[in-house]
Amino acid sequence: MDEKKLEFRKATIKDLSKIVEMIADDALGKTREIFQIPLPEDYLTAFDRIDSDVNQELMILENEEGDILGTFQLTFIPYLTYQGSTRAQIEAVRVHKDHRGKGVGKNMFLWAIERSKERGAHLLQLTTDKQRPEAIKFYESLGFKASHEGMKFHFI
Amino acid sequence: MDEKKLEFRKATIKDLSKIVEMIADDALGKTREIFQIPLPEDYLTAFDRIDSDVNQELMILENEEGDILGTFQLTFIPYLTYQGSTRAQIEAVRVHKDHRGKGVGKNMFLWAIERSKERGAHLLQLTTDKQRPEAIKFYESLGFKASHEGMKFHFI
Repeated sequence: MDEKKLEFRKATIKDLSKIVEMIADDALGKTREIFQIPLPEDYLTAFDRIDSDVNQELMILENEEGDILGTFQLTFIPYLTYQGSTRAQIEAVRVHKDHRGKGVGKNMFLWAIERSKERGAHLLQLTTDKQRPEAIKFYESLGFKASHEGMKFHFI
Repeated sequence: MDEKKLEFRKATIKDLSKIVEMIADDALGKTREIFQIPLPEDYLTAFDRIDSDVNQELMILENEEGDILGTFQLTFIPYLTYQGSTRAQIEAVRVHKDHRGKGVGKNMFLWAIERSKERGAHLLQLTTDKQRPEAIKFYESLGFKASHEGMKFHFI
């Protein structure tokens, strides 16, 4: 991967259908997303809410041909804990199926770590489904520790 | 516990020293907080950032004598996943040492679950340190599933 030719940028509304296609193209994602054109309205509403919130950064990694290689969402959360800290959180990480196995994921995480530091976060956190053992190994290789249980209570 | 006499409300700056005292009064908290009067400036700055963000709700539970029984922070995060969803997240949950063992924690979680639904969240999530086995059991009793690894990468 020639990293010089890659660009990280905030997603725009024009990228939205590509991003939804990617989040739906995944063993778990395909059970819970609806990818069709035109996109279901709820994705557009959600995009606007993300895009207008300074604590959300929905990012894409693009090559010079304009192909989207990957996407992720960074969230910055202010807390009183740790003496009034900011935490960075990463979610909805996807690498496009045509660009897997080339280090795209690692590249995105290295960028996310630097960006989190730049915004004054003292840590970057994520939760990952225990059904994704390869993902857990990958995150550990980057420096993450599985110190916590990630607990979810689904209402729907 | 006479629940009729309890009130949930958003924390104000006047509650801040009591809240910091509570987050510091904990096996893990005491290693990472600084509780002294006047409060270190960073807590005030963090409070302002939380208080001015519509996606943050720093809550307290108070009795009719004005004693703070517990505190927690709810965060609402917009995502594209799950067809453009909102997730609720709870952090910094503490019950005052004088009011433990009386159902305060459960009371706070039941309120947080209802509030999360009211704000349109499809789930409530949290991470809890694997060193807190009692907490994990408590969350499971409320309906949370430990389906995910909670992974942290500390920069500091």
